[in-house]
Amino acid sequence: MQYFITGGAGFIGSNMADRLLKDGHKVTVYDKFVTGHREFLEEALKSSDFTLIEGDCADEDKMAEAMKGSDMVFHFAANADVRRGLEHPMKDLEQNTNNTFHVLEAMRKAGVGRIGFSSTGSVYGEAEVIPTPENAPFPVQTSLYGASKLAGEGLIAAYCEGYGFTGYIFRFVSILGERYPHGHVYDFCKALGRDPENLHILGDGHQKKSYLYVGDCINAILTVVDKCSDKVNIYNLGTDEYCEVNDSASWIASELGVSPKFTYSGGNKGWIGDNPFIYLDTKKIRSLGWIPELTIEQAVRRTVRYIQKNPWLLEDGK
Amino acid sequence: MQYFITGGAGFIGSNMADRLLKDGHKVTVYDKFVTGHREFLEEALKSSDFTLIEGDCADEDKMAEAMKGSDMVFHFAANADVRRGLEHPMKDLEQNTNNTFHVLEAMRKAGVGRIGFSSTGSVYGEAEVIPTPENAPFPVQTSLYGASKLAGEGLIAAYCEGYGFTGYIFRFVSILGERYPHGHVYDFCKALGRDPENLHILGDGHQKKSYLYVGDCINAILTVVDKCSDKVNIYNLGTDEYCEVNDSASWIASELGVSPKFTYSGGNKGWIGDNPFIYLDTKKIRSLGWIPELTIEQAVRRTVRYIQKNPWLLEDGK
Repeated sequence: MQYFITGGAGFIGSNMADRLLKDGHKVTVYDKFVTGHREFLEEALKSSDFTLIEGDCADEDKMAEAMKGSDMVFHFAANADVRRGLEHPMKDLEQNTNNTFHVLEAMRKAGVGRIGFSSTGSVYGEAEVIPTPENAPFPVQTSLYGASKLAGEGLIAAYCEGYGFTGYIFRFVSILGERYPHGHVYDFCKALGRDPENLHILGDGHQKKSYLYVGDCINAILTVVDKCSDKVNIYNLGTDEYCEVNDSASWIASELGVSPKFTYSGGNKGWIGDNPFIYLDTKKIRSLGWIPELTIEQAVRRTVRYIQKNPWLLEDGK
Repeated sequence: MQYFITGGAGFIGSNMADRLLKDGHKVTVYDKFVTGHREFLEEALKSSDFTLIEGDCADEDKMAEAMKGSDMVFHFAANADVRRGLEHPMKDLEQNTNNTFHVLEAMRKAGVGRIGFSSTGSVYGEAEVIPTPENAPFPVQTSLYGASKLAGEGLIAAYCEGYGFTGYIFRFVSILGERYPHGHVYDFCKALGRDPENLHILGDGHQKKSYLYVGDCINAILTVVDKCSDKVNIYNLGTDEYCEVNDSASWIASELGVSPKFTYSGGNKGWIGDNPFIYLDTKKIRSLGWIPELTIEQAVRRTVRYIQKNPWLLEDGK
């Protein structure tokens, strides 16, 4: 099979590229290298089944040309800077909503009809039902990021109904693991590198968070794509557990071999639009036989070890 | 109070403008007159409390300047050409999603923090629960129109959370009444004008539809704005009844005094993405004391009489 991955030089995209190549498929990565890293594609670039194209998802014609002959598109390119949405509200709209539209239009032009999409548990807003199932009560959006991804989901579903596409929509909790480029594990490692004695935590530290290891995430996506063929296939991806930011901070400190004093900014949210608790019901994906191999603690510790081995990532500033 | 109405030269917008002026408020209408009609503002233009500005919702700066001093925005400008979404998929994205973003940004610039928005029952897709309440199970989109309006809802809710806006989101069934400019009553009147002996109906005629009279719609909106002050207020607007397209066709023929033979294109959908049955649960809006004054049959017959008195609308082609 031939796969086309937007954002394929990013965290999840590059892990997917490596996995698909390992499974014997052909892969084209399309990335504009604003947050993507060539270093993440080091292995992939050695393969004759791999093609790298530098381009912007806003450029429909270039994308359509590049994806000709592909059997499926994984659309992972996105603005994942969830926290700073309110500083530049147009970024989420352009990069997450409008670029999803451009990817769908490029697919129509290129005659490709299968799409996998990285959505987010943030689309549930402040969920009424926890753990939150895929068919939870119609949510009210609380962040520009969630709203922009929900809009992407809606476009994909409408293309499935209107143009006969098949859509795979994955609502992720936060993903951890190799090539993890931002978020609290990254921030805490960086802060503890500067000052191993103190760690300042946004919120009160009791925010509950659910995480999933990137390898488990890739397994889950490929399980759904392999086993499901509904018009629109929507799956939560997460583990059956959660942790508090305090737990995670302790594991990170322990893995780094430091014992910082924790201080807190206070309040039950890290930032405006931060959900105090995202915890997804994963019965639907588990019913397909998938189970995560790593616990949250194992995923956090593995991420810390990866960051320790790749200190350039902390300096990168992308 | 001073109100700013995008799409204020359109069907619902111009009815709202007249009503607000009648209630003693100041009104600015902002419209680009692509589907709007100057004729709809004949009465409003006689009032010294009324200002008309011709402009595009994509022009944030012009809008921001025009809305300065307003207490509230009604954002009704939209692409309402639900049926032909698949012929020009970008139109819904640009006019319903991106222009909602531009309206919100203009409001931030102008310091206006209250917005009323015309969404649609189409956001429920093929609803699992009928009649469909506001907190129905998380729906899957089936039309570009529904998807684009849902994206608009999401943006508004995120602005309420992130920037302290107050949002009023109304999920309409189809609206009928004075100045009704398109849709099946319009189409049937036009077709029967050409050939009073025959009427060709898309689908099998058994598609169930719910309608609401525009005057009742305006009353409902103003009731919610008056009585509710949550961060995000979401209300279905519809009647507690529905009809089949066959019923409606019969009322139209009866009101026109003709007896056509009905023929059918077949199938349970008028067009791809058409919902076979949109029927909204209106308990929430009724709990505020609002009730519709007209039945669906009365609304259909009143619409036919309006079209008969304004034959220019049928020639208009907008």
